[in-house]
Amino acid sequence: MMVLVTYDVNTEDAAGRKRLRMVAKTCVNYGQRVQNSVFECLLDPTEFAKFKDMLENEIDPEKDSLRYYFLGKNWKNRVEHVGAKEAYDPEGTMIF
Amino acid sequence: MMVLVTYDVNTEDAAGRKRLRMVAKTCVNYGQRVQNSVFECLLDPTEFAKFKDMLENEIDPEKDSLRYYFLGKNWKNRVEHVGAKEAYDPEGTMIF
Repeated sequence: MMVLVTYDVNTEDAAGRKRLRMVAKTCVNYGQRVQNSVFECLLDPTEFAKFKDMLENEIDPEKDSLRYYFLGKNWKNRVEHVGAKEAYDPEGTMIF
Repeated sequence: MMVLVTYDVNTEDAAGRKRLRMVAKTCVNYGQRVQNSVFECLLDPTEFAKFKDMLENEIDPEKDSLRYYFLGKNWKNRVEHVGAKEAYDPEGTMIF
């Protein structure tokens, strides 16, 4: 299954910046980064359940959010990209 | 049609920050902000064409990117939200 995962993490304090790094790292492990906080994740249901559980333990649900978009089988036809290609250093400077 | 629009704008310089403000404003005019750089836009094809044209004139395609996800008719079943609800001031501090 193809799941698009987007997140917002509130980075006003050091704890938030730590959560952001954790969430980003988890997403990098499970999907393809296509924008700074947007990942396309091709996973089987078991992997997705594990991934989702990790993410939801990493965020602060009062401050941060996650959205999942289940793109279905024809996901390749549902996506259009314009502009600069994704080229991120997950450990480096955030470009957003 | 429901189109999810996500963007990355490179804000390393003042011109980039200006592009970010323009792109965000255009998206606010055409869709519902669900995360900082993620918008759900319910548009007819004519509106979408106009919106897309505006966005693609506002970004720097060498530095920024746009992605469109066409979610189809069953889009409500494709979306899951976890955590903090969207509550953005488009003119205010960016939370991401």
